[in-house]
Amino acid sequence: MMAQQTAVQQPTRMNGLDVQTALDTIEAIKADASLARFQFRARNTWIDGGENRSVIRDFYGAGREDDSRSVAFEFTNGEPPVLLGNNEGANPVEFLLHALAGCVTTTFVLHAMARGIEIRELSTQLEGDLDLRGLLGLDDSVSPGYEQIRIKMNVQANCSDEALDDLLAYTQQHSPVCNTVCRPVPVAIERASA
Amino acid sequence: MMAQQTAVQQPTRMNGLDVQTALDTIEAIKADASLARFQFRARNTWIDGGENRSVIRDFYGAGREDDSRSVAFEFTNGEPPVLLGNNEGANPVEFLLHALAGCVTTTFVLHAMARGIEIRELSTQLEGDLDLRGLLGLDDSVSPGYEQIRIKMNVQANCSDEALDDLLAYTQQHSPVCNTVCRPVPVAIERASA
Repeated sequence: MMAQQTAVQQPTRMNGLDVQTALDTIEAIKADASLARFQFRARNTWIDGGENRSVIRDFYGAGREDDSRSVAFEFTNGEPPVLLGNNEGANPVEFLLHALAGCVTTTFVLHAMARGIEIRELSTQLEGDLDLRGLLGLDDSVSPGYEQIRIKMNVQANCSDEALDDLLAYTQQHSPVCNTVCRPVPVAIERASA
Repeated sequence: MMAQQTAVQQPTRMNGLDVQTALDTIEAIKADASLARFQFRARNTWIDGGENRSVIRDFYGAGREDDSRSVAFEFTNGEPPVLLGNNEGANPVEFLLHALAGCVTTTFVLHAMARGIEIRELSTQLEGDLDLRGLLGLDDSVSPGYEQIRIKMNVQANCSDEALDDLLAYTQQHSPVCNTVCRPVPVAIERASA
């Protein structure tokens, strides 16, 4: 995808991304696949009811522990009154939509750069359908997760509609969050002994 | 699970949740399954490079459009320098871990209440492994999504270890985000025509 012959004809930055750094990353990973291994992390603490808070800072990637973040990110999950909360924050299934929107957007913008496509505007609208009987254990035939998620993308760029549709299909196949959702990913939960 | 005979022996609030409201919700859904149908939403706008922002406010559930949120939630995705960004926010795969942590926690606390288990402390640590060759399209045999996610839970409660392990297994089977991750969920992406 990111053939050097395409990218060297592009300006230094494209779609807000540094083209040379992207190319260097690709070349480094091609030479040593272990540099592609990342481990992301979160620590979460229950507060009360449907309220809990995550701290996110460190991760491993490109062969080392990252040290670029001087301050940790913190995010609060909550629930609306209809789901027994007080809107202390967005709820977990809404945060999942935020993660999915962001990942599809960043994957699109990255591979647009690789194809020499300049993005002017990009926005998405997401909807996800959920049947609460799954969470509540009222009907074993109902999956507790989203039944389906729909994304509508608005994009303005310097290319044809066909090129955008091709890029969008490629994005769907290569977005990490999209593939975590649309493919089965094992989740191992273990209780730490007291 | 939430049999009334169990719950009426409990105090009005348990684990920060209103027991009677929970029971009323269950009974209402049992009488009319359409009340269990929820639709969650997010709108996201690309800013530049790996930075984009979601607005989350309205949703449909319990038979109507929710109007409980006077202000929208906003969250910013970013990327660290090693992934071509400036740490404008946590990145999408990290937000997914936050969503997963929160959902497992809230599902655990909810069904603990239903079982009459009082939670004193609850925290989780999450790790997810990702191979960047998937996102970059460098190796089609590598999935772009998480390969595996591990959750370690620390919990203090007024019950036996066996009861906690049983509750944890039930939680894993009934958490919406956990089931969106561990089962395949269809994601439909469509480009709006200009």
